[in-house]
Amino acid sequence: MVRKILLSHGSGGRMMHELLDKFILKELDNEILREKKDSAILALGNKKFAFTTDSYVVDPIIFPGGDIGSLAVCGTVNDLAVCGARPLYLSVSAIIEEGLEMAILERVIRSVRDAAKAAGVKVVTGDTKVVNKGSCDKIFLNASGIGEIYYGGLSADRIKRGDVIIVNGPIGEHAISVLSKREGIGFNTTVKSDSAPLNKLITGILGASKKVRFMRDPTRGGVATTLNEIVKEMPFGIMLNESDIPLSNGARGACELLGLDPLYLASEGRVLVVVAKEDAGKVLRAMKRDKLGRKAKVIGCAVKEHAGKVFLNTVSGGKRIVDMLSGEQLPRIC
Amino acid sequence: MVRKILLSHGSGGRMMHELLDKFILKELDNEILREKKDSAILALGNKKFAFTTDSYVVDPIIFPGGDIGSLAVCGTVNDLAVCGARPLYLSVSAIIEEGLEMAILERVIRSVRDAAKAAGVKVVTGDTKVVNKGSCDKIFLNASGIGEIYYGGLSADRIKRGDVIIVNGPIGEHAISVLSKREGIGFNTTVKSDSAPLNKLITGILGASKKVRFMRDPTRGGVATTLNEIVKEMPFGIMLNESDIPLSNGARGACELLGLDPLYLASEGRVLVVVAKEDAGKVLRAMKRDKLGRKAKVIGCAVKEHAGKVFLNTVSGGKRIVDMLSGEQLPRIC
Repeated sequence: MVRKILLSHGSGGRMMHELLDKFILKELDNEILREKKDSAILALGNKKFAFTTDSYVVDPIIFPGGDIGSLAVCGTVNDLAVCGARPLYLSVSAIIEEGLEMAILERVIRSVRDAAKAAGVKVVTGDTKVVNKGSCDKIFLNASGIGEIYYGGLSADRIKRGDVIIVNGPIGEHAISVLSKREGIGFNTTVKSDSAPLNKLITGILGASKKVRFMRDPTRGGVATTLNEIVKEMPFGIMLNESDIPLSNGARGACELLGLDPLYLASEGRVLVVVAKEDAGKVLRAMKRDKLGRKAKVIGCAVKEHAGKVFLNTVSGGKRIVDMLSGEQLPRIC
Repeated sequence: MVRKILLSHGSGGRMMHELLDKFILKELDNEILREKKDSAILALGNKKFAFTTDSYVVDPIIFPGGDIGSLAVCGTVNDLAVCGARPLYLSVSAIIEEGLEMAILERVIRSVRDAAKAAGVKVVTGDTKVVNKGSCDKIFLNASGIGEIYYGGLSADRIKRGDVIIVNGPIGEHAISVLSKREGIGFNTTVKSDSAPLNKLITGILGASKKVRFMRDPTRGGVATTLNEIVKEMPFGIMLNESDIPLSNGARGACELLGLDPLYLASEGRVLVVVAKEDAGKVLRAMKRDKLGRKAKVIGCAVKEHAGKVFLNTVSGGKRIVDMLSGEQLPRIC
């Protein structure tokens, strides 16, 4: 293992997984942590709950379509929702750089408030720390959350060959939005972050089918990394059809200009749903009834070939293996 | 309100309370947040749970008697314990500066592991973010926690005139330890941080008396600020006897040298227990049975005089009002 922490240790990709698997998870090992889900599943009283945490260090803190406040609430709500939990309560903790304009803090707090209202969750506890100028970059947030499990058994282990993979809309717009603001790049059209609370969409999905196997939001490392996490060590491969993957013209243009692969770009309002083939139609229809699922599409399926790997049927008729993100594509995207 | 964030907004004192009361709590208002306890009290399933969060930005990250890892676990465990909750589960989230020595991260993670083991809690979920060099100072941690309430009704509202205030040991050693390391000041003796998980001590206290009214750990802002928070708008005052307040020789020397008032120094392994006078003896005996309570002492009581204020009978026979921390005594102490 390298002797110093690199940006790529926080990218969501291969180096982060190595750091987690070889060291952090090993040291802190217990049966709940070992599950490596987006949320821990806990028995509290007579029910099951999901518990999750995420820190947010996005740069810039305000970007087209959102800011670090809305991102923190949506990100944590979504981590609960993809586990089949109804998000209930959030904590929000801020680390603020001395000298931050009060107006910026006010905007961020109002975004937290509005996003929490939109998601139907309550912020019930918090913390504020201030560090000397230069000791952090404007503001970092942490949001931890608790949700009640209402749909049990979601697990990558339940995925079978033939199962279908659906995404609820165009991918990568969050990353493009943050990147364009950070680098001061004006594309032809402004790409807005897709950041949104997905809990209502997901309730619709889970109400439509008892055969949803697994869900995950493709944040750091994008669709490619998320699907690689799912397929690793599984007795099936995941086939994606490039022509089916929804991508907005704005995001496509930005990717071409900057040489970025959209499959590795973070979304913050997208969910990958793995469902039995016979229920795919029902799930698609349920998704399209929600405004966050209007553009839902089947993008691939679990197949016999290339077990343990993700591969792409390209628009040009070729086929290529899609690996986990290696190194760093875009730091501080969430 | 001032237009920029100042260090004193994070000090635990008056400016932080103004920021919280006038803005953050107002915007995010709900019945749980309004309680302003160290932890939110939530009904989950058929039981009550405490949920809390804290971010840790201590500088330096390693200090005599602990490091940011042990501090994060102990701090969050204690916030649960003082609410009458049995700490069960923690999340730990790290924001790491690019270039941090891997050996330092390893030390911090091992401290998290050891402190969690000592406190009997499980770290069940986490997150790792890496930011560019210069965008944060080495490593910041967030620890959120969930504990099951086993002793209901602890509330400052239940405090009555005549109730007694007990502390489990010498105050301010955490702050002195961090400060001496940061400033490179060598005192005659090394003052070690008092940072420790208090949940077992507190279980003993709550097992000894049904008349414990309230508990809080005097962290940021110290004993003075914590007692001012308790007494604010109450129909009683809090009288402290300076000669009864336990203070080690090392901490006393450091305070004299640096012109610091020990009443405002953060402790991270101390708890203020408010208990009915008739049960004070039982509670003291229970505390002294635990190694973290050997030096427990009654330091004051709730009285008729100076309602809403804290006052000190000084060793020289005088009397002075002890206000909430105003401005900033020591930044980045936790």
